[in-house]
Amino acid sequence: MGAPFGAPGSTCHAAGAPGYTKRHVEAAHGTPPRRVTRGRKAGKAALTARIAIIGAGPSGMAQLRAFESAARGGLEIPEIVCFEKQDDWGGQWNYSWRTGMDGYGEPVHSSMYRNLWSNGPKEALEFADYTFDEHFGRPISSYPPRAVLWDYINGRVSKTDVRKWVRFAHAVRWVKEVDGGFEVTVEDLRAKTTTTERFDRVVVATGHFSVPNVPDFDGIETFPGSLRHAHDFRGAEALAGKDVLLVGASYSAEDIGVQAFKMGAKSVTMSYRTAPMGLDWPDGMEELPLLERFEGETVRFSNGQTRRFDAVILCTGYLHKYPFLPADLALDSPNNVYPERLYRGVVWEQNPHLYYLGAQDQWFTFNMFDAQAWYVRDLILGAAELPSAAERLQHQGEWQARFRAIGSSADEVRFQADYIRDLVGATDYPEFDLDRVVDVFLAWKQDKKENILTYRDGVHTSVMTGTESVVHHTPWLSELDDSLERYLSEPAEDETARIVHGGASTESAGH
Amino acid sequence: MGAPFGAPGSTCHAAGAPGYTKRHVEAAHGTPPRRVTRGRKAGKAALTARIAIIGAGPSGMAQLRAFESAARGGLEIPEIVCFEKQDDWGGQWNYSWRTGMDGYGEPVHSSMYRNLWSNGPKEALEFADYTFDEHFGRPISSYPPRAVLWDYINGRVSKTDVRKWVRFAHAVRWVKEVDGGFEVTVEDLRAKTTTTERFDRVVVATGHFSVPNVPDFDGIETFPGSLRHAHDFRGAEALAGKDVLLVGASYSAEDIGVQAFKMGAKSVTMSYRTAPMGLDWPDGMEELPLLERFEGETVRFSNGQTRRFDAVILCTGYLHKYPFLPADLALDSPNNVYPERLYRGVVWEQNPHLYYLGAQDQWFTFNMFDAQAWYVRDLILGAAELPSAAERLQHQGEWQARFRAIGSSADEVRFQADYIRDLVGATDYPEFDLDRVVDVFLAWKQDKKENILTYRDGVHTSVMTGTESVVHHTPWLSELDDSLERYLSEPAEDETARIVHGGASTESAGH
Repeated sequence: MGAPFGAPGSTCHAAGAPGYTKRHVEAAHGTPPRRVTRGRKAGKAALTARIAIIGAGPSGMAQLRAFESAARGGLEIPEIVCFEKQDDWGGQWNYSWRTGMDGYGEPVHSSMYRNLWSNGPKEALEFADYTFDEHFGRPISSYPPRAVLWDYINGRVSKTDVRKWVRFAHAVRWVKEVDGGFEVTVEDLRAKTTTTERFDRVVVATGHFSVPNVPDFDGIETFPGSLRHAHDFRGAEALAGKDVLLVGASYSAEDIGVQAFKMGAKSVTMSYRTAPMGLDWPDGMEELPLLERFEGETVRFSNGQTRRFDAVILCTGYLHKYPFLPADLALDSPNNVYPERLYRGVVWEQNPHLYYLGAQDQWFTFNMFDAQAWYVRDLILGAAELPSAAERLQHQGEWQARFRAIGSSADEVRFQADYIRDLVGATDYPEFDLDRVVDVFLAWKQDKKENILTYRDGVHTSVMTGTESVVHHTPWLSELDDSLERYLSEPAEDETARIVHGGASTESAGH
Repeated sequence: MGAPFGAPGSTCHAAGAPGYTKRHVEAAHGTPPRRVTRGRKAGKAALTARIAIIGAGPSGMAQLRAFESAARGGLEIPEIVCFEKQDDWGGQWNYSWRTGMDGYGEPVHSSMYRNLWSNGPKEALEFADYTFDEHFGRPISSYPPRAVLWDYINGRVSKTDVRKWVRFAHAVRWVKEVDGGFEVTVEDLRAKTTTTERFDRVVVATGHFSVPNVPDFDGIETFPGSLRHAHDFRGAEALAGKDVLLVGASYSAEDIGVQAFKMGAKSVTMSYRTAPMGLDWPDGMEELPLLERFEGETVRFSNGQTRRFDAVILCTGYLHKYPFLPADLALDSPNNVYPERLYRGVVWEQNPHLYYLGAQDQWFTFNMFDAQAWYVRDLILGAAELPSAAERLQHQGEWQARFRAIGSSADEVRFQADYIRDLVGATDYPEFDLDRVVDVFLAWKQDKKENILTYRDGVHTSVMTGTESVVHHTPWLSELDDSLERYLSEPAEDETARIVHGGASTESAGH
């Protein structure tokens, strides 16, 4: 594949920064990528290379950072335009109190709730090129709350000037293939204008945990209580004293269930379809098999039991949904770690000028997005060579076979580590010890098994820096202030918990 | 305007039915519309006339009925394709328990809740060509519940074969102007395919009460209770015993407020920005000025008062939102009875091959949609002549001046009656006494003023048939079964109310 970049229209240079080495480029490609003299006039027929990134969440931000890193290393990069429908970046981590439609009448993107804390150790998602130590200047705990993680991912890109590449409050309406490139039609939500521009490559970075999958249940229309999908859950305070049903057996059910317990729900029932999570739930939390039907506020389960509930939260997952793409460009996959039709998990099989970031189910997150974004960048720059369609298909076949052979969740973590290793090896993204990250994941899983209420108090060691995280000043179960300020403060004692619980131990907090 | 229909590709004939008379056609147009011999071969260059209707709610169904009526009258009609993103027609009246995104990951259309009853008399919305008497075969009450009204509008079109024109579960993704017509790109949500087809005319019938307008409020992110826009409100049962705040002073606040009261809310507070509704609220319902800020569960109002609430419902209206249209074709208007840029309220000023139905704020509903749909049909058939752009602008100016001179809500009702009269006069839609419908509206407003809890027990007389509605078997305030079956049943006594309230009078129902 030759990148058709006769005369880049955009330049983003920062001299002398490390990160993008000539060694790497030559190793990956055989020859260095074209370096076009800055400011060279484009001939009339020359293409102006333009890259559209759709979405400025964690994966889109990784793509911005990848190009910025190349520019810092002295490479000429194409014009980058990132379309973000919200007013700020951060995607899932750009929390909103809103549900349903946002202030522009666009679907709300974030599925997070105000009290969310990371449900995996930060040591498993740390950027290799921007560590927690670098951002916070001191060790922090392993499971920070939402605002702290937003601060971290925002910090990396805010130290550069990539924000100028992002058109905020711009919703992509339609992408159309045209002779080797794309026409991208975008609505400026503030100015209320629509424009169509040509791009040579499109990077889809809109994520796949924003459009809820909402199955129907017999009689659900008769349920009179509070009913919503996890996507629209914003906090568990109102669940205090209530009987709560969570439909699902994955991370949403686990985490919202524990949050509801923390905030004093009277009972938390989780309903599974295939298999229970099987964790050692505290008194007041319980798993039951699939719900069969609603009869008003009563729910009948497949084992014949019936229960009355005040609130139901459907933790039934999310859809791959790309309403701005024609169906033949839109990924349509179950949520798994190796979707079909994506070469190396990122290149659209039928049109290799279209890329997806973060389209996999995710054990790894931020650093996997980085590996993908660096690789996509190198394909675009010509620093990495795209194999032929036949070779891509063969590669796909091999990895699909490995994917199908996965027998346990530990295997799946290792599989994803191998996937990332493969990408990192093809780029100049800083190498890091993925085997040790796998160990962090396995330790985390063990901690959850031992105590789902206290695993967030555990500490892990950074693979990037060797820094051991600190025990947080307040156990997660007693911490009721989820703010960045509270998190970074150094209280003399656990004031909030003392005030709220009157000094109760964590075992009885909220109950 | 000449309709470019050289060789209609579709035919829908039903011989001998009344409704579309030659007299009318000649009167409106001077000459009868072209009647193309059925089955005539199209020349290679001949256009196949195709009409796209976007949405099969009340206004889209009116458009289907309008064409069907012409065909029944013996006229050749163009090919009609109606795209409906849901699995059934009825739009707002196609109730769903879902909120946010639907089963296909598309925004949920209906803003109705399960217990909704008409908040205006059915005598004000009756079709002139399909009366309540014809549908139900006997007099019914003036304010039927949701399911009864759906049954009525479904009944009219189900007696014809127009359903074959509707492509259900098809979401229109993009409409593009091309040389006098449109390219319409549509996703088949079940088959997951995208197709682009050419149409000569596009009728936008997607309504404007589906995309919530959700303003921000200082501190709203700290409110821990139940919080949603009226669009996502599905029932008031869970509000029993709660302190409820409704933000807004229009129909949503009024009706959801009364519903919350009916279902036993502890208190119902309604917050207005400009002016209170000023109705004679029962004890437990109250209007306060604009809310200034949230501080957790406490709300501070602009008069300095503070209150604590369990639930907040934002009754803050809806947006004109047409994400499938480029901004220069998309109506962008406040919700009023005479939006700018629409000739006669339906023809897009800058492109008269694009039409909007029901884009006005609505006193009149179903019969206004009919008047609009019949007129749009006649424009398309060439049975009504479109004035020149200059004449259209002058007409617009005259009506805009009248619109700006409206001084009261009664005036606004009369204005809308005049608007409908103008449209009906230009078509063969059965004429009806619009002045008497205005009287029905004014009586309704008076009834509400006298008692907001009992106005739905009032009776009105059909302008179409002279039939006086019956007093319903159960007062609205005591009726807790909103089903069609219950509504049409003839209980010996008010069984439901007796069971639920132990024979309590309506005044104390639910309290």
